[in-house]
Formats: sequence, C-alpha cells, structure tokens
Amino acid sequence: MSDSGSDDHIPKGRIETLADGVFAIAMTLLAFNLQPPAVSIRDNEHLQAALLAMLPHIKTYVLSFLVIGIYWISHHFQFHHIRSADRTLLWINLFFLMAVATLPFSTAVLGRYEHYQSAIVLYSGNLLLVGLVNAIHWAYVTGRRRLVAPDLSSHTVRLTMVRILLAPIVAFLCVGISFINVAGAVNFYYAILILYVLLARRRAQTGPAR
Amino acid sequence: MSDSGSDDHIPKGRIETLADGVFAIAMTLLAFNLQPPAVSIRDNEHLQAALLAMLPHIKTYVLSFLVIGIYWISHHFQFHHIRSADRTLLWINLFFLMAVATLPFSTAVLGRYEHYQSAIVLYSGNLLLVGLVNAIHWAYVTGRRRLVAPDLSSHTVRLTMVRILLAPIVAFLCVGISFINVAGAVNFYYAILILYVLLARRRAQTGPAR
Amino acid sequence: MSDSGSDDHIPKGRIETLADGVFAIAMTLLAFNLQPPAVSIRDNEHLQAALLAMLPHIKTYVLSFLVIGIYWISHHFQFHHIRSADRTLLWINLFFLMAVATLPFSTAVLGRYEHYQSAIVLYSGNLLLVGLVNAIHWAYVTGRRRLVAPDLSSHTVRLTMVRILLAPIVAFLCVGISFINVAGAVNFYYAILILYVLLARRRAQTGPAR
Amino acid sequence: MSDSGSDDHIPKGRIETLADGVFAIAMTLLAFNLQPPAVSIRDNEHLQAALLAMLPHIKTYVLSFLVIGIYWISHHFQFHHIRSADRTLLWINLFFLMAVATLPFSTAVLGRYEHYQSAIVLYSGNLLLVGLVNAIHWAYVTGRRRLVAPDLSSHTVRLTMVRILLAPIVAFLCVGISFINVAGAVNFYYAILILYVLLARRRAQTGPAR
Repeated sequence: MSDSGSDDHIPKGRIETLADGVFAIAMTLLAFNLQPPAVSIRDNEHLQAALLAMLPHIKTYVLSFLVIGIYWISHHFQFHHIRSADRTLLWINLFFLMAVATLPFSTAVLGRYEHYQSAIVLYSGNLLLVGLVNAIHWAYVTGRRRLVAPDLSSHTVRLTMVRILLAPIVAFLCVGISFINVAGAVNFYYAILILYVLLARRRAQTGPAR
Repeated sequence: MSDSGSDDHIPKGRIETLADGVFAIAMTLLAFNLQPPAVSIRDNEHLQAALLAMLPHIKTYVLSFLVIGIYWISHHFQFHHIRSADRTLLWINLFFLMAVATLPFSTAVLGRYEHYQSAIVLYSGNLLLVGLVNAIHWAYVTGRRRLVAPDLSSHTVRLTMVRILLAPIVAFLCVGISFINVAGAVNFYYAILILYVLLARRRAQTGPAR
Repeated sequence: MSDSGSDDHIPKGRIETLADGVFAIAMTLLAFNLQPPAVSIRDNEHLQAALLAMLPHIKTYVLSFLVIGIYWISHHFQFHHIRSADRTLLWINLFFLMAVATLPFSTAVLGRYEHYQSAIVLYSGNLLLVGLVNAIHWAYVTGRRRLVAPDLSSHTVRLTMVRILLAPIVAFLCVGISFINVAGAVNFYYAILILYVLLARRRAQTGPAR
Repeated sequence: MSDSGSDDHIPKGRIETLADGVFAIAMTLLAFNLQPPAVSIRDNEHLQAALLAMLPHIKTYVLSFLVIGIYWISHHFQFHHIRSADRTLLWINLFFLMAVATLPFSTAVLGRYEHYQSAIVLYSGNLLLVGLVNAIHWAYVTGRRRLVAPDLSSHTVRLTMVRILLAPIVAFLCVGISFINVAGAVNFYYAILILYVLLARRRAQTGPAR
C-alpha cells in the first residue's frame, strides 16, 4: 500500500466527504438567493407584499434544491456500489462537482429572469452538463466492472444508466420547448419533478425495485 | 449488496454527513447577517453606536442558532436510534434540509423587521415547516419499527414525538400571538428558548430521562 | 442502546463532524472579507495600489485564521481525550460554535476599523467568549472524569486548562491595553501569535511535552 | 493514550475532515464569483449578451476549480501515505488551508482584471504559496519517514516531491512571463492545465505509474 501500485485502488471515503461538502454548500447557497427585501420597508403591508413578490424565487429554490438532491441521491447510490476509487474517478468527480457547484448561479439567473429564454437555456445547459458527467461516472465505474463488485448484474447497470440519462434528456427537451414557449419549459420542469417525487414514493412503497 | 434489494436498507452514514454539512453552513451563514456597519464611520463613538445598533441582529442570531441547534440535536438523536436508511428516508431528509436551509433567510428578515407581523409569520412558518417534517421523519422511521431497533419501547417513541411536536406548537402559538401583539410574539420565542435551555440543563443533571 | 439511558453516553462522532464543518466554514468565510477592489480600476498601477491597500485586511485574515486554528486544535485535542458525549456536552458545543461562528464578523470589523477602540473591544470580547466557553467545555468533561478516561492524570487536566485560559487572558489584557493605546493592543495580538507559533514549533521538536 | 506522550502520534482523521471542508467550501465559493447580471435586463437578447460577457469569469472558474482540485488530490494522496499526525502537522495543515482559502479571492481578482499584470502576480503568488506549503508538508511527513510507513520507497518520496514542485514552478514561470506578456501568462496556465489533465488521463490508462 505504501508504494507504486497504490494508486490503482484507493479508498473511496474522501471523495464522498468532499462531494457531500460540495452538495451541502451548493444546497445551502441556493437559499442565499433569498435575501431580505433591499428596498426600505414602510409598514407591514409593504413587507408582506415584498415577501410575496419573492414567490418565484422560492419556487425556483424548491426546484433546484430537489434537483441537486436527486443528483446527491444518484451519487450516493453509485458510491453504494463502488468498491474503491482510482485517479480517473477522482477527476471525473472533480468535473462533476464543478458542474454541481454552478447550479446556485444558474438557479439565481433562472429565478430572476424566468421569462427570458436565455435563462432557461443556461439552467438546462447546466443540468445537461451535470447529467452527462454523471452518466460518464457510472459508465466508467461499471465498464468491465472496473470499480464495482464483479457480480453486479448487467440489469442493474443498464437500469441505473437509463435512470441517470432521464435527467439530461428532460433538460434537453426543455431547451427545445423553450424555443416554442418559455413558460412551458419552466412548467415542464415542475411537472417532471412532481412526477419524479410521486414515482419515487410509490417505488419506495412497492419495494426495492429501483 | 450489489444487486436489487440493496436499496431496501442502505447505510445511514452519508445522510448524516450531508445533514451535518447543511446544519454547519446554515449556522455559520446566520452570522453572515452580521455585517460591519456599511456607513462611513467618523470616529470611535460613531463605531460604538453603530455596533450597539446591531444588538437586535445579535439577539436574533442567538435565537436562530439555538433553534437550529435544537433541530440538529433532534436529528442527531433520531439517527442515534435509526439502524439503516431507505430511499424514502433520503427524500424526507432532503425536504427537512430544504426547510432548514431557508432559516438564515427568515432569520435575516426577522432581524431586520421584527416590528412587523409579516416577519414573525414568515419566521414561524419556517419553524413550523421544519418541525412538521421533523415529526414526519420520526413517524416514518418508528412506524412499525421500520428503520429503528425492533425493541425500541413505545414509551420512547411517544415521548420523543411529544418533544418534537413542542417546537411547531410554539411556532403556531407565536403566529396567533402576533395577531394580538407583535413584540409579544418575539418575546415569547425568547422566553420559551430560555426555558428550554434551563430544562435541558436540569434534565441532563438529574439523569438520562429525556 | 435503543431505550432510556441511551442519552447518558452517546457517540462523539457527529459533534466532531458538525464542529469541523463550522470551523471550516468560519475559516473560509474569513477570506470572504477579502473582496476584489469595488472601485473601477483604470490601469495596472491603480490595481496594484488597490491590492496593496488591502494589506491590513490580509494581516487581520492571517491573525484570525490562526486564532480559529488554535481553537480548532484545542477542540481536536479535547475530543482526543473525550470518550463519549452527553446532552450537556452537545449544548456546550453549540454555545462554543455560536461564538466561533461570529469571528468572521468581528474580524471584518477589526480589519476595517482597527484604529478605533470599539473594534478591538468587540474582537477581544468575541475571543474572550470563545475562550471561556472552551474552558467550561474542558472543565465539564474532566470534572469527576465525567466524559474522559478515568485514569487521565490531574497533571494533564490542569496543564491543558492553563493553556486554554491563556487565550482569554490575552484577550482580556488587550482590552486593557486598548484603553491606553489602540495600535498597541492590535500589535500585542500579533506578538503573542508569533510567540505562540514559535513555541508550538519548539514544543513539537523537543517532544510531546505539551 | 490518555496522558502525556499522546500528542506524539494522533489520529489523522479530523485533519482530513477539516481539509475536505475547507476544500469543498473554497471550490463552491469560486462559483460565488458568478453572479446574475446586476444591470437591469431589458429583453432576452440583452440577457444573452450579459451572460456571454461572463465567459472570462467562467474560464477562470474552471481553471481555479481544477487547480484547487489538483491540490485536493495531492492532499488526498499525501494522507493516503500518512500513518498518523502530530502537532506540527496540524500547524502545517493550517497554513496550507489558510493559503487555499484565499484562492477564491485571487481568482475573483484574476477573473475581473486578467488584462492587468498585478492580477496575474497576485494569483500566481497565491498558487506559489499553496505549492510551497504543500512541498513543506510532504518533506515534513517523509523526512526520516516521520509520519509515513517506514518502508515507503525513496523513489516514491522523490517522484511525489517532483510532482508537487511542478505547480509552484509553473506559477513562478507565469510571474516571469507576465513581465513580457500578460495575456501570454494567463494562456500559459490554461495550456499547462490542459496538458496536465491529458497526462493524468493517459497515466490512469497505462497503469498506476503515477
């Protein structure tokens, strides 16, 4: 362990710690887009109106928090199957976290300018990037069962990949929809998200099919 | 462990790491509402006055830090009893952390506008949400002893639930009080908090009754 | 472990995780006081001058980073000796972290207004608070060997307490000096810090005397 | 373990936790330099133009994220070889993290003023500092095999040191280049980084030569 050859299979623990840190900070920084009204508040009605005007920001916050959460769960499950890490996996994780860490930024742009197509394209592009790196991550660790258990079934590998690819496909579709209707693209995200949470709940109830 | 069935009972460690990360950041970001006086300071007396004018912010900081701390302790104790996690628990934790991560925001609003009822309602609503998700968390893991030790006594389950529900009940009462008297609602929070800390201290001294 | 009595001695791991999180964020947020010059920069000489004008901020950053580091090391060593945690220890840690999390704020005030006595008093007051809670922490865990190994020598307990009390004593002296000479109080901090680092280095070289 | 002598060899776990925290926050704060356009946006074309104008910031973000990532990997590998910690190692780590935590600041300066030499010198100086402390770190733990396995080969020690010193050498060269051509120095960074990632990929493919 103390010499050459040691890089081939290294413990996976610290990647998980770093990733959990980046995920936790990205999630909490999303809420940083929620700021007390900057204008000088005259009375209670004024404050109430200013807070209600923040509802689009709160909607975007919930959307992005759950999206980051879905990626955290996906990362969690991938590492549940991963046995050890190597240098390439460290790098794939760095690129993955690099894309995750920009989500508070593209969320802030979406929250402020959700009526403009560029905001949707930026946000969807960011999700697309996160999703594709996530798929590369899974393809790398499972290819020739490189870093997972040798007996991991092809069925699980393929099913997980399909689920991983769903998110970038949704993001890609949203870019397309945004060329026709900007509000439609945003609402498509919420619809998919609600569907996803409901399905996740049902899956959890009917058993560990995943 | 490497195939289907593996999602049913998964290790609980990474939920704790993510939660501790979000709690740590939310706590530290509370202090971010404390900013050096932005006005140009003329002399020492001026600075002293500007710092003393921040006392309401510091009071709100202490209140919210301890409130987040109480929820962290509650989360800590729930996971002390939890044996393993499943996909539903991941989701409940995401919703829980989503509500926790907005506390720095509603604290900032309360710190700046504590004389307006809307600020109390926002803050109490946030606490109510955190508290209710926390109760759902406990109900889920203990229901049919789903994710806890099978021999966990009903007495402990019920007692813990009562303690968990105290916080949202206080938040609910505060909303009610705020319709009569805004300052009264804020002071009610401080009174309850001081009481809670004192009782926690006594409980700790007299034994592990909890 | 699954019933009453379980609160008496609980694992210490998550307190360490939370504390490490708060320490890591407080340290990194110190650097947040360093911001690119806000004024519009005309040319390279202008930028160079603007960056050099930030030197006091950088000095304060180094001071506070090392001060937080010293407290992290102290916390680290206390938990090295601590065997388990109880509810009171959770609360003491919350108060400790609450005081630590405000250090970026008082550091920012000191960095901007180090020529005014109020800034020194605020900063020293914050250090005093952190130091006193730290001393209470050590007194609590070692009192009747409550949460440490029963055979921990009285010599180690006393020596550690003396070292813990050094920091609040320095802070207290600095408040006194600030009434005579403001710049003297700030320089006293730097002098003590350099001395401390040099002594720590020597101690490490001559053996584990501590 | 509970008395004097205990400081000589202490567990390495919490240094890793603190370091992972600081790395995670520094990485995520880099993205904080990306802010939604502050100017009032008139229409979609305007937003698109404002987002495209941020491309230099995004380039700098990618550069710095990967640079911090390289240091995280380096820290990771050093601790892979480290068996235990001592007080001096705690201090070296504090100085290391102190230099790492300022990278978001010098990155922000570079992102905003990459046409001015002072920004390059500041950024390179910061990288130089991080790299030198990193080298001291490795020299300390491997000197007389102080904190690593006694049988760690001299070959691995020397090879790792050469790789560690590459980064500060590049930073030093960039300062030199910046006196001749500012844009050249920035592009040199990107060239080296692309080269590094490509080589890392090839190394990973051809085997664990490292």
